[in-house]
Amino acid sequence: MKIGVIGGGQLGRMLALAGTPLGMSFAFLDPAPDACAAALGEHIRADYGDQDHLRQLADEVDLVTFEFESVPAETVAFLSQFVPVYPCAESLRIARDRWFEKSMFKDLGIPTPDFANVLSQADLDAAVACIGLPAVLKTRTLGYDGKGQKVLRKPEDVIDAFAELGSVPCILEGFVLFTGEVSLVAVRARDGETRFYPLVHNTHESGILRLSVASSYHPLQALAEDYVGRVLSKLDYVGVLAFEFFEVDGGLKANEIAPRVHNSGHWTIEGAECSQFENHLRAVTGLPLGSTAKVGESAMLNFIGEVPAVAQVIAVEDCHLHHYGKAFKSGRKVGHATLRCADRERLQQQIAAVEALIRDV
Amino acid sequence: MKIGVIGGGQLGRMLALAGTPLGMSFAFLDPAPDACAAALGEHIRADYGDQDHLRQLADEVDLVTFEFESVPAETVAFLSQFVPVYPCAESLRIARDRWFEKSMFKDLGIPTPDFANVLSQADLDAAVACIGLPAVLKTRTLGYDGKGQKVLRKPEDVIDAFAELGSVPCILEGFVLFTGEVSLVAVRARDGETRFYPLVHNTHESGILRLSVASSYHPLQALAEDYVGRVLSKLDYVGVLAFEFFEVDGGLKANEIAPRVHNSGHWTIEGAECSQFENHLRAVTGLPLGSTAKVGESAMLNFIGEVPAVAQVIAVEDCHLHHYGKAFKSGRKVGHATLRCADRERLQQQIAAVEALIRDV
Repeated sequence: MKIGVIGGGQLGRMLALAGTPLGMSFAFLDPAPDACAAALGEHIRADYGDQDHLRQLADEVDLVTFEFESVPAETVAFLSQFVPVYPCAESLRIARDRWFEKSMFKDLGIPTPDFANVLSQADLDAAVACIGLPAVLKTRTLGYDGKGQKVLRKPEDVIDAFAELGSVPCILEGFVLFTGEVSLVAVRARDGETRFYPLVHNTHESGILRLSVASSYHPLQALAEDYVGRVLSKLDYVGVLAFEFFEVDGGLKANEIAPRVHNSGHWTIEGAECSQFENHLRAVTGLPLGSTAKVGESAMLNFIGEVPAVAQVIAVEDCHLHHYGKAFKSGRKVGHATLRCADRERLQQQIAAVEALIRDV
Repeated sequence: MKIGVIGGGQLGRMLALAGTPLGMSFAFLDPAPDACAAALGEHIRADYGDQDHLRQLADEVDLVTFEFESVPAETVAFLSQFVPVYPCAESLRIARDRWFEKSMFKDLGIPTPDFANVLSQADLDAAVACIGLPAVLKTRTLGYDGKGQKVLRKPEDVIDAFAELGSVPCILEGFVLFTGEVSLVAVRARDGETRFYPLVHNTHESGILRLSVASSYHPLQALAEDYVGRVLSKLDYVGVLAFEFFEVDGGLKANEIAPRVHNSGHWTIEGAECSQFENHLRAVTGLPLGSTAKVGESAMLNFIGEVPAVAQVIAVEDCHLHHYGKAFKSGRKVGHATLRCADRERLQQQIAAVEALIRDV
C-alpha cells in the first residue's frame, strides 16, 4: 500500500519510519527541495496548489493524509475527487481556523476561554470591551509555535493590533490563568473505534513546545477523553488527533486541536506499545488500531535550533534520539529525544541529564 | 553521516530504519533491481565486484559495512583503500569460510563439533573414517539457510557426496546430538568495549530459522559471553556479531558466526533498549554503545514465503510486524513479527496466536 502525504517534514519522516515495517511505501508532496522525509520515499516537489502534481500524487497512491493542517481547502477538495483523503475535509476546515474550532468547542459543550471573531479593528475594540484585558489576539489561520499571535496587556497594545497581525481574520481570546498545559492524543478508526494515549503535560517556551511528560493515571484523563471523544464523533474523524488543553481550577479548558500526529505524541515511538505514527497509519488504512498503553515512564524533549552532539545525547541512558536530518536554524525543530525509564524518579533525573546538553540557539 | 552498505536486503532496510533517527543516511550497493532497502536510501545497482560502482560508493559515504558475509575478499580489499570498512577484512575472511571459522574456534579453545577439511572425495572418505557417521558435509563458503550441505547417514550417502555439492572445498562436521540451538548477539565498539544481548533460543525448520525466544537469566549466558568475547578480541572486531551454538550435555559447542546483524537478533528492535541494528551503527561510527537490556519478554517469528494478512498479524496484542517489502516466494524470508510481553506465560500464548496465522508456502 502506498501512502501520499501532504508535507514532507519530520512528521512525514516519522510516519514513513513507522509505516515501512507494515509494508507501506510513501510519496511526499512538498515544495521544499530539502524536505527531510524525502529520504524515506518519493518526493514530489511542488506547491500545495499545483493541480498537475496533486493529480500525479493521487494517481500513484492508495490514499492521502496530511502532515499539517494549513493545507488549502481547494487542495483537499481537488484530491478528494480522485483518492480517499484522511482526515476528512471538514476536519481540516475546522482545525485550520481558530474561529471555527472554538465555535465547535462551544457547540459541543467543551469549556474554552472566552473568544470573539475579529475581522476589523472595530471588532477588536468591541471584543476587548467584552472580554477584557489581558487577552490574546491570534490569526484565525496559519499560526503555529507562537507565531501569528500577540498578547494584549494594556489598552495601548490594542491600538493597531489588528493591523500588526496583517489585517487578516483573527480571534481574540481571553487570557487564561492556567496551572498547566496538557494534551491528549487520540486515534479513531474508520469504524469509529477510538483509543486514547495517556494525558501529556507540556512545557512551552516562547510559544514552542520544549518538554512533554506522559502522565500516569492523571485525574483529568477521563474528562479529557470525554471532550476529545465529542470532537472525534462530531467530525467522524479518522486518524490521529491531538487536543491541547489548559488546566484551570482543577478542570480543563480547550485550547486547540491538531488534526494530525503531534509533537506532544512523539514520546509514543518508544514510550507506548504502538506509536501515534503507526496508529495514524493503521486508522487511515483501515487496519486494526494498536495499543495506546505506556511502556515505562516517558518524556520527550525537543531540540530547537540544533541537535546537541549525537554521542552525548545517546550516551544518556534510557535516551532515544530522533534527528530529523534538517539544517540547523534558530527556532526550528530539528530533533527530539525520548526518555523511557523504569520509574518517575529516574525519569526526572534523565530529563535533567538531557536538558544539560541543550543550549539555546 | 552517510553509511554505505554492501547488500540491500532486509538487514540493510532495518539498519536504515535504525540509523535514520540518528541523523544517518544510507547508500546500498546491490545488483537486485528490487532490493528492499532501496526505499530508505540511495540504491547503487551493481555487482559486488564492479570496481567503478564500488569506487562511487566509497566516494559518497563515510564508511562501509556489510549485510552478508559472502562478500568477495577483493571487494573488501578494494573498498578498504578508500574508506573505512567495518567489520574488518579478516573478520569476513574467517566468517565466510567454515574451515577458517572452525579452525579459529579450535585455536581459541572453544568447543566445536569434530571437523575436517575436504578438498576431494578422497579427503571425504578419510574424514568419514576418522569422524564417523552420521556427519554433515558442508561447502566451506556460500552456504546459508540449510543450503550447501548434505547429511551423510549411511556409507552409501558418502559415495559421490563431494561431487553432489559441486566439487568445491567443503568441511565434514561430526553430527551433534544437541538439546537446543542458542545464539548470542554481541556488539563491540572501536575502543573494544563489548556488550552482549541475552542468549536466544532458536528453532529451525528445514534449515531456516522459524522462532527465536530471548532468554531470561540463561545458565549458559556467562559461558557464551566468554566464548564470543574470545572471538571478538581475536578479530579486533567492530560491530555486531552473532554466534550460534549447539547446547550439548549442559555445555555449548560452537556452530558458526555471522559477522553482521542477525536474524536471531531481530527481536531486539522492540525487545531491547537499543536494537542490534542501532548498536551496529553506533559501533561502526564510533558512537557510544547502547544498552542491550531486555524490555519485557520477547520472541521473534519469521514469515517464510509470505506475510500473513497484515490486519490479522497486527491484531494480535503485543505483536509488532516487520514486513520487508519483498516479493513473496517459497522459502524466502519476507518478514517477521516481534512479540514483547509482560511475562513468559503471556509470551507463549501470543507465540501460539501468531503461529496460528502462518501457513507453509
